[in-house]
Amino acid sequence: MTNPRFDVVAIGNAIVDVLAHADDAFLDRHGMPKGSMTLIDAPRAAMLYDQMGPAVEVSGGSAANTVAGLAALGARAAYIGKVADDSLGTIFRHDITAIGAHYATAPLVNGADVDKTTARCLILVTPGGQRTMNTHLGACTALGPDDIDEDVVSAGLITYVEGYLWDEPGAKAAIRKAAAIAHEAGRKVAFTLSDSFCVDRHRDEFIALVSGDLIDVLFANEMELKALYQTEDLDAAIAQVKRHADVAAITRSAHGSLVVVGDEVITMPAEPVDQVVDTTGAGDLYAAGFLRGLTSGRSLADCARMGGVCAAEIISHFGARPEVPSLADLVGERMGRAA
Amino acid sequence: MTNPRFDVVAIGNAIVDVLAHADDAFLDRHGMPKGSMTLIDAPRAAMLYDQMGPAVEVSGGSAANTVAGLAALGARAAYIGKVADDSLGTIFRHDITAIGAHYATAPLVNGADVDKTTARCLILVTPGGQRTMNTHLGACTALGPDDIDEDVVSAGLITYVEGYLWDEPGAKAAIRKAAAIAHEAGRKVAFTLSDSFCVDRHRDEFIALVSGDLIDVLFANEMELKALYQTEDLDAAIAQVKRHADVAAITRSAHGSLVVVGDEVITMPAEPVDQVVDTTGAGDLYAAGFLRGLTSGRSLADCARMGGVCAAEIISHFGARPEVPSLADLVGERMGRAA
Repeated sequence: MTNPRFDVVAIGNAIVDVLAHADDAFLDRHGMPKGSMTLIDAPRAAMLYDQMGPAVEVSGGSAANTVAGLAALGARAAYIGKVADDSLGTIFRHDITAIGAHYATAPLVNGADVDKTTARCLILVTPGGQRTMNTHLGACTALGPDDIDEDVVSAGLITYVEGYLWDEPGAKAAIRKAAAIAHEAGRKVAFTLSDSFCVDRHRDEFIALVSGDLIDVLFANEMELKALYQTEDLDAAIAQVKRHADVAAITRSAHGSLVVVGDEVITMPAEPVDQVVDTTGAGDLYAAGFLRGLTSGRSLADCARMGGVCAAEIISHFGARPEVPSLADLVGERMGRAA
Repeated sequence: MTNPRFDVVAIGNAIVDVLAHADDAFLDRHGMPKGSMTLIDAPRAAMLYDQMGPAVEVSGGSAANTVAGLAALGARAAYIGKVADDSLGTIFRHDITAIGAHYATAPLVNGADVDKTTARCLILVTPGGQRTMNTHLGACTALGPDDIDEDVVSAGLITYVEGYLWDEPGAKAAIRKAAAIAHEAGRKVAFTLSDSFCVDRHRDEFIALVSGDLIDVLFANEMELKALYQTEDLDAAIAQVKRHADVAAITRSAHGSLVVVGDEVITMPAEPVDQVVDTTGAGDLYAAGFLRGLTSGRSLADCARMGGVCAAEIISHFGARPEVPSLADLVGERMGRAA
């Protein structure tokens, strides 16, 4: 096992977020369940964009947000995800490299194919700050095994994979290839269930993944875990995941998080937050803090704490990427205080 | 004179802002005077973008910000400005039409010409919130007389023109054409000096414009007016502008504004602001409020007051476009209180 060049190699959908304010009537008119994430095709994306108010563009994508968190924590991160060779792709590439991540996935040459533009997530922010997301995957759907660079994956302590990728056959093959490379190199593979609707779409395969050899560390929020095991009872879901996963980190919003490892369940209360402004990215940044802990040899309790600190930072402002000049300082300060 | 379809027709550089945090050392390293607006070419834009941190994209442009303010105030606004047929151009077009403005300028078909992409302003936000701007005009430089739609300009009570346009010969010809159409239709022409560096570049021509027949209403801030007449003495500058302009609205930051009309000078104190967060767009929104007053037949004192209310709103948050659900309600409330 050679010396790792990266702490984490993350694989995900490379998405630019397009955020606009909207009222509840707008959601109703377009049949959007409030707070949901829906996959949409190019014509619907064009129609919704046309109807939306003035917007702001900012790089997003779940695993990419985690990479932003990891970079802010001083970790060496690499990202694999597909954009097109268009302006939004340039924006995504700029932002993820500007935070210090390695990013070398070849862009899709899309010509004028509106189905293969850089992915965008049309986000309607309703009064109160809740977000309803409509994602057009575009170029993301072209991610395949050829995009998995063996040198990069084998050089990462942990390969972190977004469950959202499971919607595309090419991406599934890419994940299997990456996991095989990682394990061959003696590395670990982490996986997030991403979204309860995503779990509903792929339940049987996700259970097979979690209980099989492909995943070493599972990330899920309470709702996703319950969706996975089709139960309303958290304890029942935990009993199941105990049998399936080596390590599972379960986030519970204001109730903090749980880490399930073997027969043990570590309970971590939530970090204090002055004001919850926007919960987007909470799970992504929890994963960043947790993975930073894992790759620096901290205990699982410390990992959960670090995840909680990062989640608390991200929900205290708008946006899903960290804002504090140095998230690392914040985590150091909180962890020091806890020690 | 037919019934106007628009209160204001604004002509300006159609720009997408790209905002990133930076420290003073970054400005020094790249030779940027803090707080300045510099025109840059495509290679420098590419180099700076490459060096900048992760960014957020949002539609900008001085006159376009004014149009956003006018639309928020319930005015019927039209915009003329040039984008390319690329993603940033799509973003600009979406945002300005989504606020309710008429926008029909044909996009430049740019192919792969990096000099003709949609204009972007690379904005470095230093600690304390000050903005240093680097503008690559790109497609804006292709604006010409053919882009001036006679039906649109003649249908606007006031044609409002950005001084920044004066950097390009085609745009100058476009402005002269628009002013001729407006005056032929019995309408008024307003002009903003835009920036003291812009004034330095075009002083003689600007003085000729202000003292000639092309401009009916002049907008300038104190620094721009002093630059125009090359004096440090505001009273001396006011004495000059009295001789030159029919109506001049002079903004003075925390000192409010002055309206010079004939021999009279109307003094308007600044509106109270809880906290100045970001002064970008203060002049643009002052113009919006003032023009809204003018087109609805208010007194010049009321116009100055309305400009001040809009400026106070915009500097109380980040960004150069209004954030309150209805700027019109805010202005109505403040003007009601004043009455």
